[in-house]
Amino acid sequence: MRDISSVAEFRDFMSNLPAADDSAGQAATERNAQLTKPPGALGDLEDLAIWYARWSGQARPRIDAPQVVIFAGNHGVAAAGVSAFPPEVTQQMVYNFQAGGAAINQISKTFGAKMDVVALELDRPTQDFTQGPAMTESDLLSALQTGWLAVDPQADLFVAGEMGIGNTTPAAAIAAALLGGAVQDWVGRGTGVDDAGLAKKCSVVEAGLARHAEVLHDPLSVLQALGGREIAAMAGSIAAARAHGIPVLLDGFICSAAALVLHAMNPAALDHTQAGHKSAEGAHARLLEHLGKTPLLSLGLRLGEGSGGALAIGVLKGAVACLSGMATFAEAGVSDA
Amino acid sequence: MRDISSVAEFRDFMSNLPAADDSAGQAATERNAQLTKPPGALGDLEDLAIWYARWSGQARPRIDAPQVVIFAGNHGVAAAGVSAFPPEVTQQMVYNFQAGGAAINQISKTFGAKMDVVALELDRPTQDFTQGPAMTESDLLSALQTGWLAVDPQADLFVAGEMGIGNTTPAAAIAAALLGGAVQDWVGRGTGVDDAGLAKKCSVVEAGLARHAEVLHDPLSVLQALGGREIAAMAGSIAAARAHGIPVLLDGFICSAAALVLHAMNPAALDHTQAGHKSAEGAHARLLEHLGKTPLLSLGLRLGEGSGGALAIGVLKGAVACLSGMATFAEAGVSDA
Repeated sequence: MRDISSVAEFRDFMSNLPAADDSAGQAATERNAQLTKPPGALGDLEDLAIWYARWSGQARPRIDAPQVVIFAGNHGVAAAGVSAFPPEVTQQMVYNFQAGGAAINQISKTFGAKMDVVALELDRPTQDFTQGPAMTESDLLSALQTGWLAVDPQADLFVAGEMGIGNTTPAAAIAAALLGGAVQDWVGRGTGVDDAGLAKKCSVVEAGLARHAEVLHDPLSVLQALGGREIAAMAGSIAAARAHGIPVLLDGFICSAAALVLHAMNPAALDHTQAGHKSAEGAHARLLEHLGKTPLLSLGLRLGEGSGGALAIGVLKGAVACLSGMATFAEAGVSDA
Repeated sequence: MRDISSVAEFRDFMSNLPAADDSAGQAATERNAQLTKPPGALGDLEDLAIWYARWSGQARPRIDAPQVVIFAGNHGVAAAGVSAFPPEVTQQMVYNFQAGGAAINQISKTFGAKMDVVALELDRPTQDFTQGPAMTESDLLSALQTGWLAVDPQADLFVAGEMGIGNTTPAAAIAAALLGGAVQDWVGRGTGVDDAGLAKKCSVVEAGLARHAEVLHDPLSVLQALGGREIAAMAGSIAAARAHGIPVLLDGFICSAAALVLHAMNPAALDHTQAGHKSAEGAHARLLEHLGKTPLLSLGLRLGEGSGGALAIGVLKGAVACLSGMATFAEAGVSDA
C-alpha cells in the first residue's frame, strides 16, 4: 500500500496486517545454531537477530540504511501549564534538528542513520482536549498520512521520534483511556514539572477522559480526541513500516503511547517492533509491560526525539552483524563441544 | 611508563596511579549543563560522557579509535573437566578470530574498533592450580607485560576480551580468594556445563583455595597461584590503559575477575573503567557490585571474547557524541525554560 486515503482504509489495513516471513526466520534460526559460540551465549542478541530476519524477510540480513524521523506537533493543553518549557520551544527545537544541534542528530550520525524532521502545522496547535476533541477526523487522517509517507520504503530499520512541548500529557491521556487504572499512574514529570505541574497534568487528563467518555472504547477515536498530530503521525509511520517490511525500534513514552493505539486496534500490530529502551518517565515501564515488550536499553533517558530508539540501533546492528557475519563451526574448523 | 620490567615495578605503578583530568571533567560538566535538552534528560549518558572526558583528558572528546584486544590462554584445570568444550578450542577460536569469523569480529567492526588477538603460549597451559601455582613469577610478569604492551597508546577507548577454555574456573577462584563467601556463589555454568560439571568446578576451586591458603592475602599472588595467562594479561592491559590515559569498557566475568585483582591492589584502580555489560554468568552481577560498577547493558550475553564490552562502545560513542556535538541553548536560540 502506497498511501492511506481515509481513516476507514487505515482501519482496514490494521485489521489485515502483513505477516512475518517465517521462512527467513527459520533459516536464521538454523544458521544461528551453527555459529562459532556456545548455544545461547549471545543471549538476547540471538533472538533479536532472528526477529529482525523474520520481519525484514532476509535470512542473512544487513542493516545499512536506518531511518529516524522526528515528528513535531503543538498541543492545546500546553497552554494549561503542563510543561516546564513554553510551547515556542517546539519550533525552536525543529530548527535545532534541522541545523544538526540536537541529541538525536548526534545519535543518528553515530549509528549511520538518516534523520528526517517533519513538523506538523506547528502554528495550529491541537484543541485543548478538555474543551473538545484535540483533532477533527480530517486532522487525524492528515497526521496519519503524513506519518505513513514519511517512512522511506528503502530504509531497513525505522525509528519514530517526536518533539512537542506538553506531549507527555496527551500520551498519558491515551494510555489511561486505553488501559484504565489510576490517572496518576500514567502521568509523570515529563521534561521536569514540579509537584503543582504534576497535579495540573493529572487534573487535565481526568477532565479529558470525562469530556470524551463516550468514545474511549475505540482506539482511533481516542487518538483523535486526546492525542496530537505528532502522536498520530508516529502511529501512521509505525504502521507504514509494517506495510513496507521494515522492522521498528520504539522510543520512549510518547512513541509507546502512539504504538499502544495500534496495539489496541490489533494485538499483533507491534510484532515488527522492539522497545529500544525504557525511559525514566515512570509510566513508560508500565506501558511496555502492557505491550509485552522488554526494553533493549535502560539508561534513564527521558528526552524523546527518538533518542532511546536510535541508541538501540547499535545493539541491533551488533546482533544482526553476528548472525550474518560469524563463521559456522564447520567453516571455522572449531570443535562443536 | 612504556613497559614494566618487574612485578615490583607493577606493584609500584599500582600504588601511584595517574589521576583523572579534573579540569576536562569540569569543562565537560559545564558544557553538558548548557546543551539543548532538559537538565538530566539524557540520563546515564550525561554521566558517562563526563566520565569519558575526565579520563581521556578531553573536555569535548571524540571516540575515533577504539581498540579491542582478545587475550587467549590455556589452563591446567581444563583437563579436570570444568568446561563443556575441549581445550583445543582455544587455539581453534584464535584462528577464527584471525580469520574474522567470531562474534567479536562482527561487533568490533560494527563500532569501528580495531581488533587484535594475542595468544599466550597456548601450547604451554598453566599448571593445574590444585597441584601448585598456576604460574611462576616469571610467567606472571611475562603475561602482565604482554597485556601492557598490547594496548595501543593511540587508542581512545580500550576493551579487553579473552578466550580460554576452562577460564571461568580460575576467574571464580580469584573472586572467591579475594572476596570470600561461599565458593558456589562464584562458580557458574560458563559455556554450559551440566550439574556434574558445576559440582566439579566447585570442588576444583575449593581445592585451589586450600592449596594456596597462605598467599590469599596478596592480590598479585592470588593471580599467580589461581589465574591464567590471559587473565594476567587483561589485568596488565587495563593498568596500561590507565597509564596511557585511555578509558576502558570492562567485559564479563573473566575480565571483571582480572579487574578485581587491580581493585584489590588499589580501590581507585578501576576509576578509568566502566562495566560494559552484566553477563548471564550469575557471579558476574555479584562481582560488579563488589567493584561498585553499574553495567551499561544487560542482554544475557555469556560469551566472553570482549563481546559485551565491545557492544557497549556504541552506547559510549552515543554519549560522547551528544556531549561534544550538541548545540547549546544560546547557540541554537532555544528558550532555556
